[in-house]
This record gives sequence, structure tokens and C-alpha cells, in this order.
Amino acid sequence: MYKLLNDLSIIEVSSFVASPTIGLYCAQLGAEVIRVDHKAGGLDYDRYLLTREGRSLSWENLNRGKKSVALDLQSGEGRELLVELARKTGQVVTNLPEKSFLSHAAMSEDRPDLVSVRIMGWHDGRQAMDFTVNAASGYPLMCGPEEWNPLTAPPVNQVLPAWDFITGAYGAFALLAALRHRDATGEGSEVRIPLGDVAIGTMANSGAMAEMLYRGSDRERLGNAIWGAFGRDFRTRNGVRFMVAALTPKQWTGLVAAFGVESEVAALEEELGVRFADGDTPRFVNRHRLFDVFQQAADSFDWSALSARMSWQGCTYERYRTMHEAANDPQLVTNNPLFGPSPANPSGFEYPATRSFANLPEKEVGEPRPAPYLGQHSEEVLAERLGLSSGDIGRLVDAGTVALCDK
Amino acid sequence: MYKLLNDLSIIEVSSFVASPTIGLYCAQLGAEVIRVDHKAGGLDYDRYLLTREGRSLSWENLNRGKKSVALDLQSGEGRELLVELARKTGQVVTNLPEKSFLSHAAMSEDRPDLVSVRIMGWHDGRQAMDFTVNAASGYPLMCGPEEWNPLTAPPVNQVLPAWDFITGAYGAFALLAALRHRDATGEGSEVRIPLGDVAIGTMANSGAMAEMLYRGSDRERLGNAIWGAFGRDFRTRNGVRFMVAALTPKQWTGLVAAFGVESEVAALEEELGVRFADGDTPRFVNRHRLFDVFQQAADSFDWSALSARMSWQGCTYERYRTMHEAANDPQLVTNNPLFGPSPANPSGFEYPATRSFANLPEKEVGEPRPAPYLGQHSEEVLAERLGLSSGDIGRLVDAGTVALCDK
Repeated sequence: MYKLLNDLSIIEVSSFVASPTIGLYCAQLGAEVIRVDHKAGGLDYDRYLLTREGRSLSWENLNRGKKSVALDLQSGEGRELLVELARKTGQVVTNLPEKSFLSHAAMSEDRPDLVSVRIMGWHDGRQAMDFTVNAASGYPLMCGPEEWNPLTAPPVNQVLPAWDFITGAYGAFALLAALRHRDATGEGSEVRIPLGDVAIGTMANSGAMAEMLYRGSDRERLGNAIWGAFGRDFRTRNGVRFMVAALTPKQWTGLVAAFGVESEVAALEEELGVRFADGDTPRFVNRHRLFDVFQQAADSFDWSALSARMSWQGCTYERYRTMHEAANDPQLVTNNPLFGPSPANPSGFEYPATRSFANLPEKEVGEPRPAPYLGQHSEEVLAERLGLSSGDIGRLVDAGTVALCDK
Repeated sequence: MYKLLNDLSIIEVSSFVASPTIGLYCAQLGAEVIRVDHKAGGLDYDRYLLTREGRSLSWENLNRGKKSVALDLQSGEGRELLVELARKTGQVVTNLPEKSFLSHAAMSEDRPDLVSVRIMGWHDGRQAMDFTVNAASGYPLMCGPEEWNPLTAPPVNQVLPAWDFITGAYGAFALLAALRHRDATGEGSEVRIPLGDVAIGTMANSGAMAEMLYRGSDRERLGNAIWGAFGRDFRTRNGVRFMVAALTPKQWTGLVAAFGVESEVAALEEELGVRFADGDTPRFVNRHRLFDVFQQAADSFDWSALSARMSWQGCTYERYRTMHEAANDPQLVTNNPLFGPSPANPSGFEYPATRSFANLPEKEVGEPRPAPYLGQHSEEVLAERLGLSSGDIGRLVDAGTVALCDK
């Protein structure tokens, strides 16, 4: 944990993926992130996969390094405690609806400089989740094998909840932008980020929306080929599948050399009257002919030989791994400084834990921290933030308004 | 454009997607983002789709609202000008390699408080792109139809460059975190963000890595079903495909009511000895039986009727659109305040332009701005930042070190 944000405390009232990710990224850069949940656990407290003892491996990874306060959020008193924590702290991340007890208006009463970041579904208030905004975005009908009939091909959902994670990272950015503005002006901000806008807006930012409008129709299905450039998955003689990308001049010449297809490529250039070194366009336009040449070459190599040749030429390539292989890959995990030793996870299960994606060569990195038990910090936070005595807290616990550690 | 970051100037030396996205998000929140390119355009200047006049629709969307300076970055003098711009400005975003003229060490000479954010391939310096880190992550071998044989099923690449966009948003966050740290302490930061770490780290943060290690094998292929909860794509009598998700109690009861399958679900509960209202687990475990019930009901509805019923019940669902449909959908685009009127794009093509994903109800939103022409701001920036006279700049232009607007 780098200490870039160690002057910052954040109240997080979150569930699922996007909103907890904001707090996770902030906690990994040193912020104090206080997650406040309903005392029985939020909607995501039992998200798959559960260990045999019932601990969610999803929850314990998305909430690493945070503190946990557990309140009865169905009671007026519990809700008041939460709103008071928000006011006292000054910055809040949530995915609760604006029309709830945790509205910006409620939290900013007597605290006009409050900054709230609220993850929404659609901009108009309709509910949405990663899976549903993805359906609307157009991407699922562009994925899958090239040979599928476009009229009958099914959508292909992505297993990665990409919109959630883009929204989470963007939410962390928007939070710091609003705090920077407050530091400069004293002004608070109510920031809303609709998951649906992240999806349709990313489609537009990538240029794809302009492309669709410009061509007046859908793009052809490309299978695993890269749009507008040279790249695809290939397969070696011994059945290893890998992805290669050749966009820069160096990537292209290196790839031709690694596959040993100089003469085939030259013959194709002669036949087609093009020069593939000219850039993405001739390589993309004639990709099917080139794919045949490269796949034929791949058929004559085992993976060990071809990967050595590609590495030697500095090619940009990667073998497809199953996720279980990836999780056990020393290059990706155990020998990667992104991961640190297992902290004492609530599940009791030990495995490498992530640090921040950002690495700062000159700064002390620290070790990854575990997720909290639910309510583990209820007493500490209520005492420090709201000045409650241990007697006050005891009464709140007895009344069922506050819950303590669920270890 | 909200003015949250209007006290901030950033030098961006970028290509492709992740790195330009950092500058895009900052520009959309009011920062002055000065993109500096080689005078012939960077590696991404001709990224597909190109208009008939040769303008990249990808480039003009990823570089909206930025300024452009064009220099001969193959010459020592051009490189010195860029390093000097970086030093004078104090914050830099780039995806050039650390071992280049734009190293952190070079830029921070005489400017120890410089903040640089550098997007890398893999943490160990090997090149990588979205397509290749995706292959390593495990996700492509989890996507695609459930009925595919896991031993022979091909990988399915995602068309969305999700790792690039997560990295871009995270990079914008990390930049502001380092600037906040500098504001508090005066210290600069060298921040490196490997695209590969974002991929493997996101897989871990989602809980999937722990899951793979805990179960000691890969997860079964789920097709379009949601992992660990109830949701999948269905199809109406008139052939409309849509995605539904039912994770919360309200989503589940609403969905059962909308499909009118109360009695079928009750009969299934009786047969299986479970209560589906208990949560995700019984619904996920018995999903195939439930999918049959729901698909059979969908077969008896046209889309207009079923979608009306789902809306009435507040279900979380969305129709699959092709991307061309999405780009022309009034609800997603023209009636969505995320989009503003077309500015004067370099391509001359007019289409709705995105604002920031963040919307701030109480603040002035402003209109989207166009991407610059290459070199459009060379004179302005060199004069303002480096104090060069028009004579100096004229000589640099004559020498080919500086290029002006490529309109």
C-alpha cells in the first residue's frame, strides 16, 4: 500500500462490483475506506464463490484493506448514524439510489462541501447491471466466431464485468477530481455516474459509434481478429493457441521473421500488388490471405520453438491460458510484484493478494491487507468519528442498531 | 465540460487507447490536455475507421477537447522541446517506454516534483496490448456457448478493449492521487501502470483467482448465464433477444411476475425441495431448470408485451442491440444528456459527442469539444509554455522540428 492518499477518509455504502471497486483502489493507495453495511451484510455479502464456511471470495477481494461498520440500515436510528458518519467524513461513495435516505441532499445538510459519488444504473434512474448495459451496447452481437451467420448468431456475453470495472476506476478518478475542486474552491459536488453511460459512452469514445453512423450499418463480425489491424489467434502443431498483434512496423517485421514467412508474404504482395509494410490498412484488408500464410507456418512449429522465435523477435503475443492456469502462472502471479503474501483473509484461505495496479519504483510499497470481518470496526469508527462512548455503543449494540465483528 | 480540473495542465504523449483515455477523461472534466505527437502523427493517428478523406474516427473521439503539438520526435531538438514542455508543465501521461528519451529521470531533472504516469505492457517491460493480456487472463476461454466442448472450444476475444479502458480510467485516478500527494507533501511521483497487471489484477480483485485456487480447477463454461446468480439471455416469440438479471429479492419476484410463471416456479420448488426466494444459491444451482421455465414463458410473448410487463414490475433487463442500432437509439444517445451536439470534428463528419461519464446535477455542463487537428496548438503552446517568440517558432517550423495545423 503506497501512501498517496493517506490523508483521505471515505465512507463507502456499496454492493456488487463497480462501487466497491472505487473504495478498493483508494484503499490500495492508502486511503482509510470505511465500508458501512446493513448488519446482515449487503446484497453482495454472499456473492459466489462461497467457501465451505460460507465466506464470499468475491467480497473478500473487492473489500481488501477497508474497515467495516455494520448498522441496522432498515431502522431510522441506523440510517441516522450512517448519514452522520457521511457528514462528519465529508466524502462518500455509494450505489444506493438518489431517492433513498442516503441522498446527496440529506448528507450535505449542514455539510455543503460534501462530495458524493453515486453509481447509478441508467442516467434516467432505471436499474441496470453490467450484463444488461452490455446487451444494449452492441458488443455481445459482435463477439464470437467469424463464420457464424450474422442473422442467427447468438449474443456472446463477456464473463469479465468490464463495465463495472471501468465504472469503478472512473468513479475513483471522479472522486479525486471533485476533491481537488473542493480543495481549490471550498465547493462540494454531487457526482453521478450511470453504468449505462459508461457503456454507451465508451462505445462512442472508442470511435465505434461514429463508425456505425458513418458506414450506416453494422461492422462485419471479425471473430478473434483485431479490428483495423493485423492480429488473430493461431494454433501451433502441438495444439497451443496464442494471440498475436502486429500494429507497429517493428511488430510486423518481427512477426514475419518469427514465423519464417518472408517469401510467402513477398509472393502475396506480388500477387495482390500491395506492400504490407505500409501499415495497418493493407494488412487488415488482406487479413484472410495473411491468416492462411501464418496459420500454415504455425502448423509446422511446436509451441516451444515458435514462442522462442517470437520472443527473440520481440513480438507481441501471448498464449491463451485457462483461468486456473493463469491463477497458477508464476510469471503472472507469484513472480509478479503486483501480488504480495496472503494476509489473514476472513475466509481463512491463503492465496496471493493484489497491491495497487499503480507501482511507484521509488516509494515504499507495503503489504496487501485483508478485507475486514463485517462490523469489525463498528466500535472504533463510531467512537472516533461520532464521539460515542463505549456505553453509548453498548446500548446501540443491545438495541440491534449496531453489530460487531462477525468473525 | 465541467470545470473540476480547470487548474490542471497535462502533457500527454500517447498512442492507441489506454493512454489517450487518461487525457480524454481529464479534458472532459476541464483540464488543459496537451497531446504532443510526432509531426507525421503517432502510431494511432490512422487507426480504423478512416473516413474517405483519411481522418481516423477512433483518434478524433479519443482525443476530444485536447490541444495538439506536433514535433519531430525523431530529432534531438524535437525531443528536447518535449522534455522541456514536460518539465515546465509538471505532469505527464505517456505510454512511451521508460527506456526512451521520455524517461521519468530525464523529465524530472531540475523538476523533482514531476508526476509522470506511464502505461506499460507487462510489469517486466515486455510489450503487451489489450488483445494479448486478455489471452493470458483466462477470460477468452470462459466465453462462448455453454454447449461447446471445453477440450476443443476456441477462445472468444472481446471486441471491447476492456483492459485498455480500465487502465485508462485507473491511470486518470492514479494521476490525481499522485498530484494530491504532491499538493500535500511537495513530492513528485513516478507511477507505472502495466496493462498486464490491470488484467491479472482485476481477475484477482473480482475474486476469480481465489476461486480458481480454492476449487483447484477451472469454472464450468456458463454461456450467457450470470455466474453465481440468476440471469441469462432469453428470446421472445417474435425473435427478440434480451438479457435479464435477478439478484435482489425485488428483481426475482418481479421477474417471476412479469413472466407469469408463479405456478411453474412453485411446482419446481416443490419438486426440488428448495425456495428460490432464499437467494442466489438455489437459483444458480438449479438454473437450467429455471431457464427452461422462463424460456417457455418467453416463447408465448411478443417483445412489446413482455417488455411492458418487465418494465411494470421494475425488472432489470435489456434488449440486445446491434451496435448500429445502439448508435441510433434515442434512449441511449440523442435523448441522453451524456451526449451533446456535434462540435466541428476534424473529419467534418457530424455526430453526437460525449461529455464526461460523471454528471453533476448542480453544475454547468458545457458542450463537448472537438479533437484538435495535428499541430493545431503548436504555436500557442510553445509560445505560452516555453516563451518562444514567433521568430523562434518560425525557424523551428522551417527546420522541420515543429509542424503546424494539418487541417
